[in-house]
Amino acid sequence: MKVAVLGAKGRMGMESVAAINSASDLTLTASLDIGDPLEQLTKSGTEVMVDFTTPDAVMKNLEFAISNGIHVVVGTTGFNDAKLSNLKDLLSKHPKVGALIAPNFGLGAVLMMQFSQTAAKYFESAEIIELHHANKVDAPSGTAIRTAQMITDARKQSKKGAMPDATKSELSGARGTKVGDVPVHSVRSHGYVAHQEVIFGDAGETLTIRHDSINRAGFMPGVLIGIRNVAKYPGLTVGLENYMEDMK
Amino acid sequence: MKVAVLGAKGRMGMESVAAINSASDLTLTASLDIGDPLEQLTKSGTEVMVDFTTPDAVMKNLEFAISNGIHVVVGTTGFNDAKLSNLKDLLSKHPKVGALIAPNFGLGAVLMMQFSQTAAKYFESAEIIELHHANKVDAPSGTAIRTAQMITDARKQSKKGAMPDATKSELSGARGTKVGDVPVHSVRSHGYVAHQEVIFGDAGETLTIRHDSINRAGFMPGVLIGIRNVAKYPGLTVGLENYMEDMK
Amino acid sequence: MKVAVLGAKGRMGMESVAAINSASDLTLTASLDIGDPLEQLTKSGTEVMVDFTTPDAVMKNLEFAISNGIHVVVGTTGFNDAKLSNLKDLLSKHPKVGALIAPNFGLGAVLMMQFSQTAAKYFESAEIIELHHANKVDAPSGTAIRTAQMITDARKQSKKGAMPDATKSELSGARGTKVGDVPVHSVRSHGYVAHQEVIFGDAGETLTIRHDSINRAGFMPGVLIGIRNVAKYPGLTVGLENYMEDMK
Amino acid sequence: MKVAVLGAKGRMGMESVAAINSASDLTLTASLDIGDPLEQLTKSGTEVMVDFTTPDAVMKNLEFAISNGIHVVVGTTGFNDAKLSNLKDLLSKHPKVGALIAPNFGLGAVLMMQFSQTAAKYFESAEIIELHHANKVDAPSGTAIRTAQMITDARKQSKKGAMPDATKSELSGARGTKVGDVPVHSVRSHGYVAHQEVIFGDAGETLTIRHDSINRAGFMPGVLIGIRNVAKYPGLTVGLENYMEDMK
Repeated sequence: MKVAVLGAKGRMGMESVAAINSASDLTLTASLDIGDPLEQLTKSGTEVMVDFTTPDAVMKNLEFAISNGIHVVVGTTGFNDAKLSNLKDLLSKHPKVGALIAPNFGLGAVLMMQFSQTAAKYFESAEIIELHHANKVDAPSGTAIRTAQMITDARKQSKKGAMPDATKSELSGARGTKVGDVPVHSVRSHGYVAHQEVIFGDAGETLTIRHDSINRAGFMPGVLIGIRNVAKYPGLTVGLENYMEDMK
Repeated sequence: MKVAVLGAKGRMGMESVAAINSASDLTLTASLDIGDPLEQLTKSGTEVMVDFTTPDAVMKNLEFAISNGIHVVVGTTGFNDAKLSNLKDLLSKHPKVGALIAPNFGLGAVLMMQFSQTAAKYFESAEIIELHHANKVDAPSGTAIRTAQMITDARKQSKKGAMPDATKSELSGARGTKVGDVPVHSVRSHGYVAHQEVIFGDAGETLTIRHDSINRAGFMPGVLIGIRNVAKYPGLTVGLENYMEDMK
Repeated sequence: MKVAVLGAKGRMGMESVAAINSASDLTLTASLDIGDPLEQLTKSGTEVMVDFTTPDAVMKNLEFAISNGIHVVVGTTGFNDAKLSNLKDLLSKHPKVGALIAPNFGLGAVLMMQFSQTAAKYFESAEIIELHHANKVDAPSGTAIRTAQMITDARKQSKKGAMPDATKSELSGARGTKVGDVPVHSVRSHGYVAHQEVIFGDAGETLTIRHDSINRAGFMPGVLIGIRNVAKYPGLTVGLENYMEDMK
Repeated sequence: MKVAVLGAKGRMGMESVAAINSASDLTLTASLDIGDPLEQLTKSGTEVMVDFTTPDAVMKNLEFAISNGIHVVVGTTGFNDAKLSNLKDLLSKHPKVGALIAPNFGLGAVLMMQFSQTAAKYFESAEIIELHHANKVDAPSGTAIRTAQMITDARKQSKKGAMPDATKSELSGARGTKVGDVPVHSVRSHGYVAHQEVIFGDAGETLTIRHDSINRAGFMPGVLIGIRNVAKYPGLTVGLENYMEDMK
């Protein structure tokens, strides 16, 4: 399978280039960064494009790839509803092309989100702590926001009421930020990379699901699964969890 | 629904009596302990019998109940293959009676086992740490053994090879005990009740599922789910996870 | 030693009565609650008064006890600077009387605070997560606030600058509340009692100190140490850590 | 200060070379590996030698350095009583030379050991879980063994009896290996680097001290502290904790 990487000089891009080069079933056709001509994708016969660029650059890349029948695996962040809507329009004109948008390529992170969605139906309390390196600019993390939304949806389906919380006197911010129903707390410290803990509680017991990611190599198995399977899933797919059956 | 408790003076039995008394849809018909006549079950029109007795006493209780068309919810430990086989024979003669044998009634523990079974398919490494109060006589716990077996089965299905482990020089016992493929470590300390951590690892990431049970009240929602649903599942059911759809 | 308990019908008071009754070197002289006459303390020859009452009631109790030469061990919360100043004045008139005010009687909690104070000198990042049952009304907990102050003081002494934190885009509250220099996060969930985690980080490593308190029995060794030693420490002592040498 | 690194092609050696090159107050005089002539140390005027070689090679290196008045900072493992005794003899002939032998250069690890030593005096139960990458050949880790010995000594000083443990029925190895009084459990999994958790328990509470080291960069502050201070401590020093006052 012929694969190109965009954002090849970034940290995730570099790891992706190395991972593709190490995989015997994949051939790297191009590793492009800002300013490089997208025509190299078509000239080299690229079948799948991996995009770890920036929120500003990604839509132009996707338009070029999809219009040329190239499947896309995207780890670039910042996909709001408007962008996703544009992307769907684009894909509807090229119905054989697959696009995977994944906020997190760690298999463990994907499982953490899935398990959280299930557990949310059984417990009255749910809360998220995410812990990242001190250089991270956004809080909470995209993964935490997504997890909180999935938990909120699951609670709605199970017709759960408000979470128990007797707090009357709070120093502002102590109880975190609410994403949907779920309080989310963001820790930033040296010595961390990317970690998340989802806590579920009921009378006498708690269930805690924790994912620790200590280097980018941990995301590569997920990226490779995306590359190898994206052609099987035409149209838009958000979240690597939709490919889980291909991972076992 | 009319419910009796056997082993009513034990700690789990007492909690069960209290939980049944607090549930508006359940009526306590009898709370029996060692030496009390089982005929009270039939005289009182008991529909479901809860058994938290001892490995020695339980089979006699089950024979009486099942022969009299009473469903059984059993938390008593020590069910080996021979006992389970006897129980199946007994149930085959009374095909409408349901029997639930559950090594752990904590919903969180059940979810922990289910999630572990799923995660086992995606990770190369899996290991269990269980932590209990210092008065526990067996190591590892029944829940840890069951979890290890479920992980081992899942690995077999996914055709996983041996776990990575370069240990050459070991002080005897440092690497725990192997249950199936899975190393299990048992911590015993004051200040614990019943806790378990299941760790899954792959390059650059770990996924940890932890259950903390700090009092017996935490088991009662599971016991009540067993009582309310056992009639719907005729025959033998091992593990509360088979009732999970009824719990949401 | 003759000991009385005030607030004897509250949860901590009841535990204290039981602990004193179980200790062969201590005699319970009185167990009083709201409205009971304080004169029982003097009539019964009480040497040490334990107070687990309310912020409103405590000062009147302390005045009576100290004026009558009775040492006091106090777990009642809400001691601000004004109250402490009043208490010092009172004690200065009765220089042989000892008063211990302790926000937390858990030995583990005291050690957690001491270790945190030490670790603060060596790490650039420090953050606190405290996790309590959903019925708690204040956030953060008193123990978390005290720990954060101790860390802040230690950082000042070591001339540490601002903690590393690149957060630019934050959902309000995600980064917790700042107590001194330290971000503090409060989790409230069923299935918890009283727990705290203090995280220290530097390049490539984190050190985490966690205290878990799962029932009130865990505070009784600390209360007994207070009772047995308060007479040795005339004047005001804030924090059980000042008695640590007596605990080994 | 002029510093040389031996074992410069190993992973810790490479990190040390990089750390020395980044430190404005240190000058790298030589980076040697197996077979390189030790005379480069003396020719280049080396003041401090850092040794991350092998148990076989280290004693010859130390003899050369110490005989030539060069201080040594040693992270090489395998120092038994015989080796330490030889080293003391050697140092007694060169009384101005300092030698630091450190099983762990992580500041967090050193603090974890110190805190454990203190906590051991207050708690009845103590247990260690260490978790490392799957390529580690020895179990338990050197740090875990050292921590267990320090806890055992502290318990002896406080005249603590046997730890509470009611285990009667054990699958061999479940309760770990005993180092002194302390059960030690070794987890080996992909996704870990070097981690340790020390658990202390008493009625109703546990205190857990955890150190996570996710890359070798985390050891470099400790190595630099060793280099900068070894000259102040003539003779043999085992353990970086003896330099802690120089670290704040």
